[in-house]
Amino acid sequence: MTSAWDFGIRKELDMVEQKLHEMVKSQEQVLTDASLHVIDAGGKRLRPTVTILSYKALGGTESQKIVDIATGFELIHSATLVHDDINDGGLTRRGKETVFKKYGLHDAVVAGDFLFVKAFELGGTFDKNVVETVANACAKLAEGEVLQNRFRHRKDLTIDDYIRIMERKTAYPIRAGAMVGAYLANASADTVESMGSYGLDLGIAFQIIDDVLDFTGDQKKTGKQIGVDLREGHLTLPSLLAMKDSPSTGKAIMNLISDDEPKQASIDECVELVLKSGAIQKAKGMAEYYGMEALGHLGCLQKNEYSQSLRDLVKKVLERDS
Amino acid sequence: MTSAWDFGIRKELDMVEQKLHEMVKSQEQVLTDASLHVIDAGGKRLRPTVTILSYKALGGTESQKIVDIATGFELIHSATLVHDDINDGGLTRRGKETVFKKYGLHDAVVAGDFLFVKAFELGGTFDKNVVETVANACAKLAEGEVLQNRFRHRKDLTIDDYIRIMERKTAYPIRAGAMVGAYLANASADTVESMGSYGLDLGIAFQIIDDVLDFTGDQKKTGKQIGVDLREGHLTLPSLLAMKDSPSTGKAIMNLISDDEPKQASIDECVELVLKSGAIQKAKGMAEYYGMEALGHLGCLQKNEYSQSLRDLVKKVLERDS
Repeated sequence: MTSAWDFGIRKELDMVEQKLHEMVKSQEQVLTDASLHVIDAGGKRLRPTVTILSYKALGGTESQKIVDIATGFELIHSATLVHDDINDGGLTRRGKETVFKKYGLHDAVVAGDFLFVKAFELGGTFDKNVVETVANACAKLAEGEVLQNRFRHRKDLTIDDYIRIMERKTAYPIRAGAMVGAYLANASADTVESMGSYGLDLGIAFQIIDDVLDFTGDQKKTGKQIGVDLREGHLTLPSLLAMKDSPSTGKAIMNLISDDEPKQASIDECVELVLKSGAIQKAKGMAEYYGMEALGHLGCLQKNEYSQSLRDLVKKVLERDS
Repeated sequence: MTSAWDFGIRKELDMVEQKLHEMVKSQEQVLTDASLHVIDAGGKRLRPTVTILSYKALGGTESQKIVDIATGFELIHSATLVHDDINDGGLTRRGKETVFKKYGLHDAVVAGDFLFVKAFELGGTFDKNVVETVANACAKLAEGEVLQNRFRHRKDLTIDDYIRIMERKTAYPIRAGAMVGAYLANASADTVESMGSYGLDLGIAFQIIDDVLDFTGDQKKTGKQIGVDLREGHLTLPSLLAMKDSPSTGKAIMNLISDDEPKQASIDECVELVLKSGAIQKAKGMAEYYGMEALGHLGCLQKNEYSQSLRDLVKKVLERDS
């Protein structure tokens, strides 16, 4: 069902799966089906993993409690995937038809809303602090979406803009998970902040690798074609770095992303230019940098199985090929 | 800015306006603008009104507290309007361009999500009971959307189906507002239930009148063209009643709603058939019935300014022409 990583929290991750399935039950079968379509497509459960590990590394012991909020984070993530695919006109995700393609615009909009509501149902049972952290991350997520869309098909995106978008779309929710995990384990305010910084840096590293895989990934493993970001008019770190190094590559990529319906040959050509440019190594280097930063924030943790897992997670994120 | 009714809670409704404006502030101006576009279009603030009146009729005195959750209900309502307009392809609402038309699909999806998140930020600060009531109503809302869409362009909708959809789309959220108001005023479980029944019946009456106004309304007052429901392929109570009474009317309306892009002349003809059929009076009669039922649930309330307002509200809902 899912390709979730393990890290000594198999039991809790299984409980997350169970809770996800329980939460999306509806009298309207199509809401359940559409929700399960995205949930069962086999995500990495990165957000639940970070949330649970942060909690357990800091001594938290109430599994059901942390599973509930971890499930909330995954439901929010699922909701944004469903709505994202509408906006990108995406037809496949993780090798499967998107909810948008399979169920149509109407039910995709509503299914995303339904997943949000179910997340709130879980998140709302926690205290004001947790609710604020989650809500802030969600508001940032919406900002990231808007920002990314504003730069779509545009050539003037800077690396700073890119990081700003990725922080909001991917890293803030992971930061929120790490913070909530620490907070619920009764960690000090300083530790909660440090864990948040860990989550933020881990999230950026994760996203950079995601964007690298859009150039280098094996479709059989990622379930994604190569060059989707360029096709959809999005510059990401590898293309930005390649453009910076070569004016002719810059021109080719700029032409490509201005095009609403680019030809496959142009996409292939630009992917090739990026692969040849050394930008992939540079982007991986930046991901490494964020990974190291993430590790640096874990100094607040005592040595135990779970704090080690938080370290291993950084490595896994950097080395992943799907 | 808004055409909200009053009922002795002007101060609280002004606080709701202020809170709505405060909540939708975002670093991304387009999220704020799109949110305010729907918020400032001048709704009736029925959900906040019911929530606040229920609270005050039962002796609640903490204005800011009830204003916060009342604002949450209005934010949810606004979110669903934004997403609804995407699904109906609606170009105008309350006489203004829809968010979808003005800001495009992408930003309309995200702005709706943003409004949901902001509602959650408010709602999530309340206790488990409130969160559950609100989340359940939202889940029902999604079910109502799906159900309504499934019957779109279809001729086999029964009056029972119609009521089932309207309950979910309109009446359950109003029920939730009435219940939460009573609950926060520390009313007994029985009273909370009675207030919920009041809200449910009031909501159905409100929706029936809404659907009547789709045939009889003055565009200058409602901001809506006549016959929009039929144009969009939705049968509502007036058309259902007219079809029941006359096979030839039934045939004309069935042809119309099967049509994805019906001609204006066919719409005009069917509106005329419904107006001539006596269905409008019957539908109003049914609204009256639900209005009486709503009043019947108020027996639990002591006489005071606000319990009187809850009664007046029923009258206002039944007599409204916009």
